[in-house]
Amino acid sequence: MPADPIATVVKLLSRLPGIGERTAQRLAMHLLEQDRALADALGDALGRLHDEVGWCARCGNLALRPAEGEPVCTVCADPGRETGVLCIVARVQDLVAIERTGSFRGRYHVLHGLLSPLDGRGPESLPLDALARRLVEDVVREVIVATPPSVEGEATALYLAQTLRASRDAGLTLTRIASGVPHGGDLELTDRITLERAFEGRRSL
Amino acid sequence: MPADPIATVVKLLSRLPGIGERTAQRLAMHLLEQDRALADALGDALGRLHDEVGWCARCGNLALRPAEGEPVCTVCADPGRETGVLCIVARVQDLVAIERTGSFRGRYHVLHGLLSPLDGRGPESLPLDALARRLVEDVVREVIVATPPSVEGEATALYLAQTLRASRDAGLTLTRIASGVPHGGDLELTDRITLERAFEGRRSL
Repeated sequence: MPADPIATVVKLLSRLPGIGERTAQRLAMHLLEQDRALADALGDALGRLHDEVGWCARCGNLALRPAEGEPVCTVCADPGRETGVLCIVARVQDLVAIERTGSFRGRYHVLHGLLSPLDGRGPESLPLDALARRLVEDVVREVIVATPPSVEGEATALYLAQTLRASRDAGLTLTRIASGVPHGGDLELTDRITLERAFEGRRSL
Repeated sequence: MPADPIATVVKLLSRLPGIGERTAQRLAMHLLEQDRALADALGDALGRLHDEVGWCARCGNLALRPAEGEPVCTVCADPGRETGVLCIVARVQDLVAIERTGSFRGRYHVLHGLLSPLDGRGPESLPLDALARRLVEDVVREVIVATPPSVEGEATALYLAQTLRASRDAGLTLTRIASGVPHGGDLELTDRITLERAFEGRRSL
């Protein structure tokens, strides 16, 4: 393949998750030979993406940038959602997954990351001041910690429990989503830690 | 996910080969949350792609657009390449694959497609006038038809053989790449048509 513009596109495409050099080359060739209009349309849409989409000033979810004022996401803008229950998630993807269930009617707080000392991400990287403000302003009575049941997710959940101890003493309910054998899961094929958690988290029948 | 700019990016990304709606969503979220700089860089590079890269005016390969005049690809611009031998390929990707072998020293003619009556692609969609001109101008003595050994590729090869009959009578050698059991292939696992072709194309030892 000749020269720089194509090599640049291939290099950038291969920075996308799950797309290696070979796939990136195939995609670039597709854009050059089969679907030339797509390159222009996609280039335009990607160039405008961050101008048009920002973070919700309240919860950190994705939100359209309005002509004036700060972005507010569809969840925070919905008066039908409970303000008293706050679900803490690590990423917007997790929020989207929870929204898909359609069963949570409270609001969210997106951390945009987890504690990970090995990667140099300490408590200062989490939006905890904003969280503290919301607890007061929205008169939150329950915080559901829905960080993933991974090492970083559990560490972050523990840290949040410590940080929110004062609010807890003042009456805030702090909960953690259940971890256990997934729906349809086979106990024989379930890893040891998950199985231990399923036993620890057992509930009366 | 909220609103239009993201939906637009997801829809465009899922037009890429091998990328479904779900993967496109994951890629869009990556561009929004993990690697925001990539969206801008990729948007810019894709927007400029077709301004900077065009088709070689001689053979149809990809070529950088010069400040003045028509694009000429690296193969056609290389004085060390034989002009007397012309390899006809369906797509630039096929040219790239042949170039990777490093063993072909002639030049190419890219059809940018194959005959496919069912898809409404007839002979008028192939750059045959340009081919006829090149045969004369470049004093071509051999044309190697390297369209793929598929139904469309074989139909196109047969059509080219008919079209070039006059040149053939005037001394042009017309050849077709071999089709057979691939290197390292297992006869037991080879499909019937390939095996038949391997027998038809047998050569003396």
